[in-house]
Amino acid sequence: MKKVTSSEDQWIERWTTPFLRRKNKGIRYAFGHDCAVLRSPSKRYDLVFKTDAVVEGVHFTPSTPPTWIGRKALARPLSDLAAAGAIPKAALVTVGCRDSTQARRLQKAYCGIAALAKKFNLHVVGGETVRTRQLFLSVSLLGEVAPGYSPGRSGGKPGDHLFVTGKLGGSWPRRHLTFNPRLAEGQWLVRHRFSSAMLDLSDGLGVDLPRLARASRVGFQIDPIKLPRAAKATPRMAFTRGEDYELLFSVPPRHVALLRKKWPFPTSITEIGRLLPESRGFHTGGLPLQGYDHFR
Amino acid sequence: MKKVTSSEDQWIERWTTPFLRRKNKGIRYAFGHDCAVLRSPSKRYDLVFKTDAVVEGVHFTPSTPPTWIGRKALARPLSDLAAAGAIPKAALVTVGCRDSTQARRLQKAYCGIAALAKKFNLHVVGGETVRTRQLFLSVSLLGEVAPGYSPGRSGGKPGDHLFVTGKLGGSWPRRHLTFNPRLAEGQWLVRHRFSSAMLDLSDGLGVDLPRLARASRVGFQIDPIKLPRAAKATPRMAFTRGEDYELLFSVPPRHVALLRKKWPFPTSITEIGRLLPESRGFHTGGLPLQGYDHFR
Repeated sequence: MKKVTSSEDQWIERWTTPFLRRKNKGIRYAFGHDCAVLRSPSKRYDLVFKTDAVVEGVHFTPSTPPTWIGRKALARPLSDLAAAGAIPKAALVTVGCRDSTQARRLQKAYCGIAALAKKFNLHVVGGETVRTRQLFLSVSLLGEVAPGYSPGRSGGKPGDHLFVTGKLGGSWPRRHLTFNPRLAEGQWLVRHRFSSAMLDLSDGLGVDLPRLARASRVGFQIDPIKLPRAAKATPRMAFTRGEDYELLFSVPPRHVALLRKKWPFPTSITEIGRLLPESRGFHTGGLPLQGYDHFR
Repeated sequence: MKKVTSSEDQWIERWTTPFLRRKNKGIRYAFGHDCAVLRSPSKRYDLVFKTDAVVEGVHFTPSTPPTWIGRKALARPLSDLAAAGAIPKAALVTVGCRDSTQARRLQKAYCGIAALAKKFNLHVVGGETVRTRQLFLSVSLLGEVAPGYSPGRSGGKPGDHLFVTGKLGGSWPRRHLTFNPRLAEGQWLVRHRFSSAMLDLSDGLGVDLPRLARASRVGFQIDPIKLPRAAKATPRMAFTRGEDYELLFSVPPRHVALLRKKWPFPTSITEIGRLLPESRGFHTGGLPLQGYDHFR
């Protein structure tokens, strides 16, 4: 099957060329992973650094309750920290809004952020406001992870088993606003080093799985009937709808039995396929390699 | 003279109430300072965390060369890190743009960011793109400073001398795009502990000086004829125009002579006034307490 690259990925690849020329041993992961992971000078932990924005008309509508807008703005980058196995420590919040009427309405968005931050023992430490015609919230996060433990997207090997948490295809109309980022699950997987590569499913398995495969230089095979589906979701919806915010991770064959035995969470994990040698390509059992793409 | 609070400050104060209820000894400075400053678990340094956005129609125009848009997007938060005396380490870049034509044009903005990052030995490690009707760039920075050395805005004492770097009122039409953040100067001031409080002049002395004074719970007196003015700038322009990106800092009387003697930079420093007891209020010699405010 043809390898499809999303147009967003193509732009990012082109834009980031000037940055990638400069290598530095202080950087474990940069572009092309869910989070940047940096060695700290003390070497006792790695710093995890992430930014993510939600925009009116793209990630929420004018009728979305402001509390949920704020909640989603923080939950999305938390989901990326989950994929890095990181413990979130601090957040900065940027708000772009039109005028002081809209600003007033946004106070509730801050309450949504504060409630979720409290739940994960994370501190919102600053931010700023700018005047924009289109409402947006951008959240930057700082977290920590044991040094060298964060798997990134690039460690998958041919033969590794592919797992996802939870159920897919049920993000609309509500779950994309109210989902719980899989922080405890991601931290546990990384602490026990079960996952060779991991990412969070934001744009949909149909584009996120190829991202993991390309970063790991492998192919894959998935079985559509194995996909864990939300109520009323078809395999195609589970594969392409996006905004699931579940974890996709690869597990070396020798760890699979132990993972199944030790998994301590009520959240389900489901094996959906295997990684293959790169030359074998991408096999989806007929499902299209599609998902959410901002620039399509 | 009446204390004027900018409407942006009022919104920030209202919004941030839910966050300020939660105290944590890991946080040295949060809202109300140029940067958030966090203790690192190793205690060998403090982490400095900052985010800042530039928006089309506010911080640049459709005719601004993209290289300069990128440069400004990074230089502004670097100026905040300068005020914290921090060494910048890593940056994340968020770009909001309309379509792939605009995205193409933005490649040059990334080159502007990359060139300035290289100059300050800073690594751009990630970011994201979102689809928006109005172009914006948001940059988040991570830096380091010796533990407890960053002065914040709140350490000014009555009697401290007020200094600014460089010249004021000359930001338009070009300098607001091409200025050099005063990183070396800020790092030097903090390393030698000359400054009791410091901030960078982004919105203009007329609003930034009251911010320092309120955070330090002091009054101030400045002398309009002492203001270091850019060519063709009146004292009023130097006080209210904004976008100077110079450092404003207070120096305890016992350090002033040594500061003048040891100052090693070609950038000028000028004494513009003194901090007073809070009860004495704000004295500007007739200049208005105004500057740039997004929401006025």
